[in-house]
Order: sequence, then C-alpha cells, then structure tokens
Amino acid sequence: MLPKRMKALLKARPGRGAELAVVDVPRVGPREVLIRVKACSICGTDHHIYSWDPWAAGRIHPPLVFGHEFAGEVVATGEAVNSVALGDMVSAETHVACGRCSLCRTGQAHICQNVSILGVDRPGSFAQYVCLPEENCWKNPRDVAPEMASIQEPLGNAVHTVLAGDVAGRTVAVLGCGPIGLFAVGVARAAGAAAVYATDISPYRLALAPQMGADEALDASRVDVVAELRRLTGGEGLDVVLEMSGSPAAVSQALKAVRFGGRVSILGIPSRPVEIDLAQDVVFKGITIQGITGRRMFDTWYQTRALLASGRLDVTPVITHRFPLEEFQRAMELVGSGQSGKVILYPTPPGEE
Amino acid sequence: MLPKRMKALLKARPGRGAELAVVDVPRVGPREVLIRVKACSICGTDHHIYSWDPWAAGRIHPPLVFGHEFAGEVVATGEAVNSVALGDMVSAETHVACGRCSLCRTGQAHICQNVSILGVDRPGSFAQYVCLPEENCWKNPRDVAPEMASIQEPLGNAVHTVLAGDVAGRTVAVLGCGPIGLFAVGVARAAGAAAVYATDISPYRLALAPQMGADEALDASRVDVVAELRRLTGGEGLDVVLEMSGSPAAVSQALKAVRFGGRVSILGIPSRPVEIDLAQDVVFKGITIQGITGRRMFDTWYQTRALLASGRLDVTPVITHRFPLEEFQRAMELVGSGQSGKVILYPTPPGEE
Amino acid sequence: MLPKRMKALLKARPGRGAELAVVDVPRVGPREVLIRVKACSICGTDHHIYSWDPWAAGRIHPPLVFGHEFAGEVVATGEAVNSVALGDMVSAETHVACGRCSLCRTGQAHICQNVSILGVDRPGSFAQYVCLPEENCWKNPRDVAPEMASIQEPLGNAVHTVLAGDVAGRTVAVLGCGPIGLFAVGVARAAGAAAVYATDISPYRLALAPQMGADEALDASRVDVVAELRRLTGGEGLDVVLEMSGSPAAVSQALKAVRFGGRVSILGIPSRPVEIDLAQDVVFKGITIQGITGRRMFDTWYQTRALLASGRLDVTPVITHRFPLEEFQRAMELVGSGQSGKVILYPTPPGEE
Amino acid sequence: MLPKRMKALLKARPGRGAELAVVDVPRVGPREVLIRVKACSICGTDHHIYSWDPWAAGRIHPPLVFGHEFAGEVVATGEAVNSVALGDMVSAETHVACGRCSLCRTGQAHICQNVSILGVDRPGSFAQYVCLPEENCWKNPRDVAPEMASIQEPLGNAVHTVLAGDVAGRTVAVLGCGPIGLFAVGVARAAGAAAVYATDISPYRLALAPQMGADEALDASRVDVVAELRRLTGGEGLDVVLEMSGSPAAVSQALKAVRFGGRVSILGIPSRPVEIDLAQDVVFKGITIQGITGRRMFDTWYQTRALLASGRLDVTPVITHRFPLEEFQRAMELVGSGQSGKVILYPTPPGEE
Repeated sequence: MLPKRMKALLKARPGRGAELAVVDVPRVGPREVLIRVKACSICGTDHHIYSWDPWAAGRIHPPLVFGHEFAGEVVATGEAVNSVALGDMVSAETHVACGRCSLCRTGQAHICQNVSILGVDRPGSFAQYVCLPEENCWKNPRDVAPEMASIQEPLGNAVHTVLAGDVAGRTVAVLGCGPIGLFAVGVARAAGAAAVYATDISPYRLALAPQMGADEALDASRVDVVAELRRLTGGEGLDVVLEMSGSPAAVSQALKAVRFGGRVSILGIPSRPVEIDLAQDVVFKGITIQGITGRRMFDTWYQTRALLASGRLDVTPVITHRFPLEEFQRAMELVGSGQSGKVILYPTPPGEE
Repeated sequence: MLPKRMKALLKARPGRGAELAVVDVPRVGPREVLIRVKACSICGTDHHIYSWDPWAAGRIHPPLVFGHEFAGEVVATGEAVNSVALGDMVSAETHVACGRCSLCRTGQAHICQNVSILGVDRPGSFAQYVCLPEENCWKNPRDVAPEMASIQEPLGNAVHTVLAGDVAGRTVAVLGCGPIGLFAVGVARAAGAAAVYATDISPYRLALAPQMGADEALDASRVDVVAELRRLTGGEGLDVVLEMSGSPAAVSQALKAVRFGGRVSILGIPSRPVEIDLAQDVVFKGITIQGITGRRMFDTWYQTRALLASGRLDVTPVITHRFPLEEFQRAMELVGSGQSGKVILYPTPPGEE
Repeated sequence: MLPKRMKALLKARPGRGAELAVVDVPRVGPREVLIRVKACSICGTDHHIYSWDPWAAGRIHPPLVFGHEFAGEVVATGEAVNSVALGDMVSAETHVACGRCSLCRTGQAHICQNVSILGVDRPGSFAQYVCLPEENCWKNPRDVAPEMASIQEPLGNAVHTVLAGDVAGRTVAVLGCGPIGLFAVGVARAAGAAAVYATDISPYRLALAPQMGADEALDASRVDVVAELRRLTGGEGLDVVLEMSGSPAAVSQALKAVRFGGRVSILGIPSRPVEIDLAQDVVFKGITIQGITGRRMFDTWYQTRALLASGRLDVTPVITHRFPLEEFQRAMELVGSGQSGKVILYPTPPGEE
Repeated sequence: MLPKRMKALLKARPGRGAELAVVDVPRVGPREVLIRVKACSICGTDHHIYSWDPWAAGRIHPPLVFGHEFAGEVVATGEAVNSVALGDMVSAETHVACGRCSLCRTGQAHICQNVSILGVDRPGSFAQYVCLPEENCWKNPRDVAPEMASIQEPLGNAVHTVLAGDVAGRTVAVLGCGPIGLFAVGVARAAGAAAVYATDISPYRLALAPQMGADEALDASRVDVVAELRRLTGGEGLDVVLEMSGSPAAVSQALKAVRFGGRVSILGIPSRPVEIDLAQDVVFKGITIQGITGRRMFDTWYQTRALLASGRLDVTPVITHRFPLEEFQRAMELVGSGQSGKVILYPTPPGEE
C-alpha cells in the first residue's frame, strides 16, 4: 500500500537554498507511472535552482520539488499504461515531449518545442516518489546499481554530443571537465578516438580526466589552450572539439583549435552572448557547429546502455560523492565548489527500503 | 603563334582603382596551361581589391593582375600536362590547392590550408591570357556561352551552399541577394525547396529574386525579417537558412529564423566579429551551422553543370550587365552601387577574337 | 448520428474476387478515431488480395474489408484522443506501428517489427467508414481534393525512395512505371535530378512517364536497358537507380546500370529470390543498396505535402480512372491489365455525402 | 649506388606456383619513386595468383612480379616528384588511380574506373625493389616496424569496412576470420562496438578472434549462425554485419542476421552469383547493403594510422608467421591451408640490409 505523503527536497520560495519537506505523493494520470526513487544525482541545473541564479529566477515557479536525474522502481501505473509494469526498474528521460509537434513526429523529440522538463516544469525526483509519463521510462536490468542507472541521463548528454559525428581514429578535445565533460572523455575514448585532450580550470576535475582516459589534461588558467592543442595535433588542429563548459572563452578556443573542416559540438550553455569571428573561424575553415541538447529519444539511451554493458566505458571515477537526501546542503555546496564529480543523493537509506 | 604581351587590368599600387596595362603573357610551368580569356565576371572580391578595403590592403601585394571568374580556350600546355588539350574550352576552379596536405588528400581540397587563389595570390584573369594548373581546369562543351561558363564558379558557391544538406520539400531562406544569393534562390528552387524566401536591402536586387524563383522577397530595411519568416512558415521557422550577405544583422536573423533542428549555412563573410546567443539560438534549438567556402572539388562542378544542362536552372536573369574590359571603371562602379546582378567583362571584342 | 451498418468491399473467402457487403461500422477504441471515407485508391496490394495470389493466400485471413489508401473526415473519436478532432480531414499512414519496440523508439517506426497494416491485418478502407489509431492520422487542409489526399500514401513511398539520398544534379533511372514509379519520376524531377530515365514494358505506362517529367521512357521489352542507360549517361552509368517494378530482371539491370559508387534503392518486391553478381556489381563498384518500405513517420509525409503544395510536383497525370465503389470489379480488372495509372474509388456518390 | 638487378618472386607462366628470379630493377618515371622493400605481406589475392585460380587465369599476364602489401625505404625519385623524399619510410596504397575520371575528381579514387593494381596490373612488391607513383606513397614514422607498416594496407580494408557507418554502441558481426576479418574484429572493438561476434569454419582462425576482441567466435560449420546471432542479440538481430568471407552462405547469413534497418557491408568477394531474398531480407527490413573495396584515399589511411598510434588497436595477434622471401613456397602453402593469420615475407635478411 502506497503512502500518501513523502519526504522531498522543496524549493519553497525564491532565493537561495531549499528545504526538506513532507509533501503529497504525486497523483498518477492514465498514461503515467509512479516510481519509488532509489537514487538521484545532482545536475548543474539543480545547483542553479538551489543557488537561485538569474536563469532559475526567470524559469522556476516555487514551490517545486526539483531534481530530475534518478532511478527507481515502478510502484503504480495509470490505467492506460501498456509499456511499463509494476516492479520495473527504470531511469527517466527527463524531457517530457508533447508527441504532437512536427519535431516529435519526425524523430526529433529531444528538441520538442513544447517540452516540459522534470524538476523544472513539473515536480521532480529529489523525493521518495516521482510521477512520469510511461513514454519517458527507460527500463534497466535489475542488476544495475541505482546510482549507475541514474547517471545514464547526464551520461546520455555526453554520448549524444560525442557520437553526433565521427570519432573513431579522430582527435578530440573536451573543453570543460564537469561530470558531462568527464563522461565525454570516457565515451570518446571508448569510441576509438585517436587521442582525447581535456581542459578545465579546476585542478580537482583535471585530475579526474586521465582516469577517464584523457591523454592530456590542460589547465586553461595556466596554458594557452589553443596553442597547446595545435602543438599536440602537429599544427593541424583537432578533428572534433566538444564544448562542455559554457565558458565564452572556451567557445572561442573551440573554434580556433578545431581543424579546417572539423566539428565543434556545443553542449555547454553560455550565460551571455558570445562574440565569434565567423569569417576566420567558421566560414574560411569550412567547419560545422552543432548545438546539442538532451538525448536523442531513444537512440542515445540504447547507445549509452550498450557502451556501459560492453565494459568498454567505466564511469565510476566520475561518481565521487554520495549522501542521504537529508544532507542535501553539504551536497549542493560541494557541487558548487567544483571539488566534485557527480554527486548522488539517496532519498531512502538502503537498509530502510 | 602566341603574343608575348597582352592587355590586362592591373592593380598597380595600393589604393583605390586599377589601370588597363600591357603586361607579359604569363609563362606556363610543366603542369600548367595558358588560356585565352573569352569572358570574365566580376566577383565581390574583385571589387574589394579595386576599392582597396582593409581586407585587400592586408592581403594583396601589387602589382597584380586580378580577376578570377572566367572562361576561355586552352592555347598552350606545359610538357607534363595530360588531362587538358589545346583547344579545350575551360572554366577555372580558382582555388589552387597544394595537393599534399591532409585536407587535399582526403577529398577536402576546397579547404586546403596552403591554398593559392587566382587573382589574389597569383596573376588573375582580367586579362587576355591567364595561366592555370591543369588540375584547376574544368572543361565545358563548346556550345556553352563564355559568360555562362565563367559564372559557373560563383554559381558553384551557391550550389555548394544549398546542397550542403537536404533541400527537397524543405523551406529555405536566402539572406542576401547579391549574385551568389540570387543563384542560391534558383538552385534551391530547382532542387525542390518547398518555398524560397529571399531578403536584401537593395530594391534592385530584391526585384531580381522572384525572377530566380523566390516565393517572397523581403526588404530587410523595412520589415522585421525574423517575424515575417516565422509567419511565412506557420510559426515554425525555416528548415534551412543560407546566409549570403555577410551582414552581422543577417547572421542573427538566420539563427533566430531557423527552426529547431534546422540548418544555417554561412557563405557570407562578416567584416567583424559577430555576437551570437549560443544558448538560445544554437544549443537549445539543436541547430547545425556550416561554414561554406569555395566549391567541393569537383563534386560541386559536376552538380553545377548538371543543374544548368537539365534546363531546370536558368541563371540568365542574374547576368545584368556586359562591358568590354576597357570599361572596367563603369563596371566596378556599378558593382559597388548594388544596382546590378552579375557583371561580365570581355577582354577581347567578339569580332576580334 | 452515426449509422451502425455500412457498405464495404469484403474479401469474404479465399479465392479470386470480392463482394460488396453491408457490415458493422467499426467500433472505436479509446485512442482511435472513426473516419468517413471520401475517396480511396487502389494499391497493387489490393489487387493481390482481390486476385488471391500466393502472397495473399499466405497472409490474408478472410473475411476482411480490404483497402488502405484513403482520405476522409473524422466523425468520432475515442475518449483518450488528443491530437485529432471531429471534422478534421485526414489521410492515413497505413502502417500501424507498435510504438514500443526499439525501432519505434528510435524514429524508425516505418520498419516496426510488430507492424499491423490497414486492410491487411485490420479492417480497411474500401468502405464508408474506417477506424484508425489517432497517431496514424495525417491532417490535410480542407481544400485538398479527397483523391489527392488519398494518394499521398503511395506518393509517400515514392518520396521516401527518391529522397533516401542525393538527387539534385544527379542522373536518375526509375525502373517500373506503375503509379509509384510514375510518382518517383515526378519527385526526382521536382527535386532537381539532372535527368530522369524511366523503364517499363507497358506502352500505356511508358506513355505516362514523359508527362511526369521523364527525359526518356525506355521499353524494357524492346531495348537493352543497361546499354541504353549507359549510353544516355555517357558511359558512366547512373548516379541513382530506383527499382520500382519487383522484376528480377530489373534488379539486375539496376545493379549494372548504376555507376561506381552509386545508389540503388529498391521498393519493388520480387516474388522470388534474385541472383546477384555481388563481386562485379556490388563490391568492386562500391555501390550502396537500400531496401525501402513504407514512409518515414512522419518526415516523408511532411516532404510529400510540401512538394505538392509548392506546385513543383503535379501528380494529376497519374490519376487515370475514377469509379464508384460499386464498380470495383471494373476497377480491379483495369488495375490488373496494366492499362491504368492510379485508380480511385468513391464509396459515397459526391451528391449523397 | 643502386643495383641494376634484383631478386624477385616471379609468376613466370600460367599455372600453379612461382619462382624466385633475378630481374631488372624497375625504371622510375618522372612522377614515380623506387622503394627498397623491407617487408611484404601475403594477401589472398597473391595466393590466387600463386595457385592460378580462374580469377587469376583471366586477369594476370605472366611474367609478372606479384605482391602488393609492403613497406620500405625510398631510394630514388623521379625528377617531378615533390611530395616524397629519399630516405622516407613508406607503405603503399596499392590502387594506382587515374586521377582524371569523375570518381577520382570527386574524392572517390578508391573506385577509379581506370585503376591499375600493384602486383596485378603492374610489377609488384615481392622483390627487393618496387616502383610506385608518388601519390601512392604513405609515409610512416621511422620507428614503425616494417611488417606493421606493410599490413596497414589490408588493415585499411578492415577500417574502411567497419567505419563505413556507425559502430559505437552497436552490435557487430564479422563473418569470416581471415586476416582482414580478424582486423575488423579489432577495429570494431576499438571503435566502441557494443559486442563483436565472429564466425569462420577454421578452428585455427576462430581461436584468433577472441585475441582480437571478439565476444564470441562461432564455428559456422557446427552452429546455426543466424539463430545463434539472433539469440546473442536478444532476438533483434545485429546493427551491423560485415561480410569478409566471400562465402555465398555467409552473404545469406548476413542478410538474415542483421536487424531491421541495419547495415550489411560486404568486402568478401563471392566467386559466383549469390541468390538473395530481396523481398524478405532487404526491402521489408529496410536495410542498407554497401559494397566495399579498397581504402578511401587517404581518409582510411589517416584513420588506420591513428587507431594504431592510439594504442587502442593491437593487431599483433594476427601476424602469425614470418619467412625470408626464399621460403615463399612454405609461406604460400601455409596461406592456402587456413592455418595462419597474416604471413610476412622479408626480401632481404635483416642483417644484410
């Protein structure tokens, strides 16, 4: 028998912070399922909401249970649900697409124009229970650890970005070693990159990059990244540059470090407009720039699962910290400090499940 | 018997203008050919050189015979030439690629890093004779008019840009109705675009766009281009936007008018860095931006010839003026005025050939 | 108020033929809609069912209302339907995909492994009413004639095949001038093919090909198709060959007539295994062969609508005959004779709607 | 000072066998180079020539020095050579393309219609010296072992085949474990394949497959390959099947084992036409079949070098035997027996270089 109330991390009002609260367990619509959360991981977006930056202030409407990366067990299903069953262990595609726009109808639901995002536009997963449309469930084998199941969502961002073009036998740079950047290093390595170079300004994160397979980890606060990347590629520049930092400086480095005809895929989200020398860095070089968002539904999920299951991609070095949900403040401060990889929260102590 | 001296349009010294001069007929290397020029057309680049803008001042080393779009007849061949013969009627791929860099060796000679450009880095074709490596010759049937043969080079820019992705059944906007933009309108139409919308600020050029098949020609100085393009596409935005103007404002319009997941191909060369809202206009929209330069060697040339020969693409409306070489000043002023399409120069009066 | 009984063309039992019967109007499930049929068109599959060939005998389970190409008006909707409304004018994507298999979940629903086909696996549209899942409805503007709306389904097969690769500026051959082949000729022409060559053995159909834009229509019973296609392409072979006939001889011609590195897309369905010289015709030539089935959901539908709406594709020459549903025997015999293009049936006389 | 005569393996006359002979050192044309051979490897084609099978009897015109996979040092250059220098260590792209046909001019020289093949159409590399156009030289760092440099040519076949489509996170089967098949197993693994399954009928070769990274090696003479591959992929079939055996039975297995929408890339060369169920295995499944030949010039070479240099691809298990050129008979018999991987010949004893 399901409880009516549950523990959840609530953004109760505008301003910095959040609070642990007891709220109603979500109601489940006819095509939705209820999932008991076993592990949830903290995304940079969650930290934006916690610290209430301008983006959050403009987008979030408290009170809101936030959080969106998670894994758990299906404990209730709406009457019209036909693809997920009680007891299924699932992760979530966190972009709830409308299913009716031209993008959804042409296999591009990841850029649905009417998208609703879990933990942003609808109640999220920093809670004991979360409600989700059945289409957004991704079933996992029972033997996948909840934290590994949870991080498939941000890992999927990395897979989407890396595999948006050729990688095997190509040189790759990953600018930004947050969790998704670190994942991208590992994915590029697993996908046969000739070499993978990573940059960041946090010594903590730079130290993780070689563990994920980076051939070199460059401290962008100390070296001339473009010059160094050119040197490492024999003067030619990189075949592929993945911008994962959101730093305007890194965007410029990406465009200057990529070779003529190369690919720059941008997942990082700059907080302000960026100045680009289109003539020299884009047009004459004949490069391709890709904006990347979300995960292809569900091709990215299949690839992500396959890479993990193959044993060629080990992302455990990226998971650096684990906390019970109650210790969310320590966890959020850690995320804000840059002294962590991916941080996991457990809403229910393992023993009490 | 070939003459030793010839008439040519010479950029004799830095500063505005050029002069008609008598210079030596070029010497032909072992793998080069000499071509008697029958028609040459004026490119925007030629006007930059003529008017001596900052780009020209930084790149051009007078004295130089300039001009590069042309067609003519092979009148001499170096001893190692084996793919072109005396009497062949040829156009020129004007980018002389090195043939040895990694880009040349992988089918991307159009972005060769050691490229030398006709009429910019080596003597050009505003002359009675011009010298070219045999690899850069494109043979034409004898019945193609010299002016049509000449403009295959800029038409190739348009073909390269339009066909760098899907067009059939897709909505297309062409920003900028200079000759290449007008060509692009025609190519998109011939390739089955669902609709083609063109923009410019010159009434003269806007009037040519419908003749090339544009469904609408928008005056960017009078209407809100982005709003209007959204309206024309039912609010969705365009599948494909081709930036042909080099205007920073148009770059921004391109990124805002393209639909989620769409393509923006940029051939126009902004004279200064451009500010881009990467987050809203590129990343979240999941679009692709392509820098386009030159013509794919020689796939673009095959496509260009085929489109012309099929009768589906009629570019004659774009050729608006013809002058003898002697009247280069009138021609150059006309090009600078925006009151023309493509302008042709004839180095030798037809009767005197 | 909807009637309970309706007129329908029934395959009542195994064996040649069919009968006009009065049957129950279909019941509509929660996510389905009921459509009053305004026009339906006859597919080759319908004729297989009518004439009871080996394929039909192995696949069809009478009694069955057959037919699947149609257009009509939505007259009832299930309670969970949210994307289609009463009064909508719709065509049908006739492949009812499961929505849950890995192909459906990765944008490849056109090859869903659990597909159920209208008029084959579930009651069809040679009737006054037909029932369809809402996802399979394709809305049309009210001013599209029902017969034009109906034939978007087979036209979509042609669009899918032609646009499965580059066409603009490429030479194309279409082997087989049944309705889909004829559509393909028109689509290739509208999409900027350098030249389109068509083959068939029926003089009636060959006469339609030039009306759809074929540069040459070759009678495969009288000329050496491969030799002739090579001659027409200057000895090189075709860039693209579309096999639309299902004839084993045509498959061989396709492989021999395509150029080195070219594309052969096969929509025709041979009734028996075909012998292929893989070494000479596929491996050494480095060609690509594509099996094509159905229409991409729903990208093909968007492209099809756009091509029709642009005015560049006129398919009216292919619609050669129209009958009331009552005259199904004449219509089916006509289809079997090869003396027709696309044949339309009207279940309700226009005056009685 | 170069010698005038050299030791070479000569196919002196039609019929089985070959003989060690002393022949003239090749003359070098203006754009050619002479290379002192340090190692050459035996291709299946060489064994066809040695054993004089029907293909060899129809293609080869004795007397001919055969062999084409090799590496060596440039010891003489023609007067017009400008991209290779004395002392360069080089491997050979063995397809001498014409450089003038439409395929050569569009980046598809690997399917040049006028190709001349080393050791087949012109004197080969089972010799102390071999002559080659400069364009066909691929420079290697001096520290690459000659045998590793030599096998880049057949390894390139594998790279070309594997990377002709997506591999990362995809399931792959390699049918046929000859040297190129074994290379393909390793390349697929290095490029992030979810799983790699290999088949053959030789226990010797099947034993090598796991050493190259195969997850399973199936003996096609003992198990139902299609059933087993379906079982291993959870009933779905493979994303990618690479046909490397040339066996007609394997072609059929490839088509039946690939999933709906999957890719079958065929490098193996069947000695006779193959019967294919196009309807069930190609059209309805919507698969893509690619004929693969040679190596893309020179993209495949760049990828091959990069994969080797990255340390992710170790092909040493495939090199199973080494002989001095004098022991060619033992080497050829070994190749014919199926009891070997790649076999290397050394024309000059290491001590005598």
